[in-house]
Amino acid sequence: MTNSKKMTAVEITEPGGPKALSVCKRDKPQPSSHEILIAVRAAGVNRPDVLQRMGAYPPPKGASDLPGLEVAGIVEAVGDDVTRFRVGDSVCALTAGGGYAQYVSVDEGSVLPVPAGLTMTQAAALPETFFTVWHNVFERGGLRKGEVFLVHGGTSGIGTTAIQLAKAIGAIVITTVGSVEKAEACKKLGADHVILYRDEDFVSVVKQVTDGRGADVILDMVGGDYINRNYSCAAMDGRIVQIAFLSGAKTEADFSKLMMKRLIHTGSTLRARPLEVKALLAKQLEEHVWPLIENGQIAPVMDMIFPLAEAWRAHDRMEEGSHIGKIVLDVI
Amino acid sequence: MTNSKKMTAVEITEPGGPKALSVCKRDKPQPSSHEILIAVRAAGVNRPDVLQRMGAYPPPKGASDLPGLEVAGIVEAVGDDVTRFRVGDSVCALTAGGGYAQYVSVDEGSVLPVPAGLTMTQAAALPETFFTVWHNVFERGGLRKGEVFLVHGGTSGIGTTAIQLAKAIGAIVITTVGSVEKAEACKKLGADHVILYRDEDFVSVVKQVTDGRGADVILDMVGGDYINRNYSCAAMDGRIVQIAFLSGAKTEADFSKLMMKRLIHTGSTLRARPLEVKALLAKQLEEHVWPLIENGQIAPVMDMIFPLAEAWRAHDRMEEGSHIGKIVLDVI
Repeated sequence: MTNSKKMTAVEITEPGGPKALSVCKRDKPQPSSHEILIAVRAAGVNRPDVLQRMGAYPPPKGASDLPGLEVAGIVEAVGDDVTRFRVGDSVCALTAGGGYAQYVSVDEGSVLPVPAGLTMTQAAALPETFFTVWHNVFERGGLRKGEVFLVHGGTSGIGTTAIQLAKAIGAIVITTVGSVEKAEACKKLGADHVILYRDEDFVSVVKQVTDGRGADVILDMVGGDYINRNYSCAAMDGRIVQIAFLSGAKTEADFSKLMMKRLIHTGSTLRARPLEVKALLAKQLEEHVWPLIENGQIAPVMDMIFPLAEAWRAHDRMEEGSHIGKIVLDVI
Repeated sequence: MTNSKKMTAVEITEPGGPKALSVCKRDKPQPSSHEILIAVRAAGVNRPDVLQRMGAYPPPKGASDLPGLEVAGIVEAVGDDVTRFRVGDSVCALTAGGGYAQYVSVDEGSVLPVPAGLTMTQAAALPETFFTVWHNVFERGGLRKGEVFLVHGGTSGIGTTAIQLAKAIGAIVITTVGSVEKAEACKKLGADHVILYRDEDFVSVVKQVTDGRGADVILDMVGGDYINRNYSCAAMDGRIVQIAFLSGAKTEADFSKLMMKRLIHTGSTLRARPLEVKALLAKQLEEHVWPLIENGQIAPVMDMIFPLAEAWRAHDRMEEGSHIGKIVLDVI
């Protein structure tokens, strides 16, 4: 901690490759009445940070221009209307940006306690994927016990979180991955069937392992030709939730499958939601998911930890694509 | 009425144009324990009948091969387990096929009383569109008072029904039509904005008349490039319900709009639903919609009536496309 009004952060100098990330000095943020100032100890790295760095995902109005959508740290100061947290508390939080920094101000509703037993780097790996998976798989997709759940990209932060949460509620989990090593990791997390998408057609495999029934809920961040293939392997009354488009968003699909099977195709982005929605999600997570983390049933899957000043290496690793689980920045 | 075991019907000799419909003699159906035998007085004509005639929409397993998805008539006989209706009652019904005939057997749950004050031809015009609109616009699409509702093909049977029901619950209704004459008809039914789709881009008009907000619920039977355009003119959290694809089901769309606006794209077909679902829908209609018909707030819009033996002319008219409202067959 320091009494200086300045802090170290990582900024995007101009849209470009990983090296567009560079260390800078910025003013320490001032918390408003409903905000908490967090002295950041660790910051999660997410795919939207990479897109933002490339210039493809500009921060919403009023948000910090610094990248970083989740942090863990110590409460440094609280606004006048803050009631739940006190200076010195260990917290993790979803941020509107600005996580790649020594300090960040966050709305109280987006802050959660660090689950008992977790390190700061583990806690920083929670918010973005847990908020996203909870909302999209359970609230939006309505996944229920006994249903079949297909999640693409099983070893991504989203994938490892989704596999564990879906297994915890008693769903049958199928996932797609790009390598045998990743397949092993997903099986360890509890996935019932892992499909090597380079060697197998996931549509055929999903139908085969479900005796022709298909998947009840599909979480997709790939897009492209996966959209039509998701329609093909969805069960009657299936729900397909789109959270990103790594292979592109403009594509052809046969919508007669959507109609004949009464599918629901929907999607959402977390960052654009109002603070009230994030606060409600945080409550749900603290009530339903934090206990599963504290009793060891679920744990964030950690890939690698890089120092804040080497954030570009973290991006490099994410883009290279061989990571399993979350990439986190250590902030001192 | 006759004691003969034979009846007159209209069958599809082989897939083809309207003239593929020809008069035939068939065995009078026998009602099973939960069925009602209806002496048909009028039979509604629907787009799926045309597709069935062309060979593009085969009847489901166990259903009659005769076309015809809705009738009105007099109860001729009832199965042992039928409790609600008696011989001599005036009824209308959703059928699993076989409506183009002097007699048809229907599950009791798919039968409704003829609303007070309606003729048999009017009553025969109700089931298919009212079941379809109720389920897709209100149950599936969740249209609520004060929301903006866009329905394509405003003068079709579906369109005229949807406009009236949506206005009855207090929605703002926008529709698309192909001619000035059709626009007038829709305005008379209460549509707030009518778009001439040949002259105007419906996406621009919907945005303009909603101050940029867009449509909360869209009922679409067109498909083709309308799908991507529906995504463009849908409001945040909008619901798009697909009930047919007159312009084709395979098409390109920009799914980033679906994700960024958190749209729900879904659809359904009525014919494939189990009898229990149809019975629940019938109850909803009798409770919520039949009173609106009986007090004159809503009425089926009638286009033309043809004798059963001239069913081919009815199909000819539907395919020609200038009809406004329902085409019905008179059965004597």
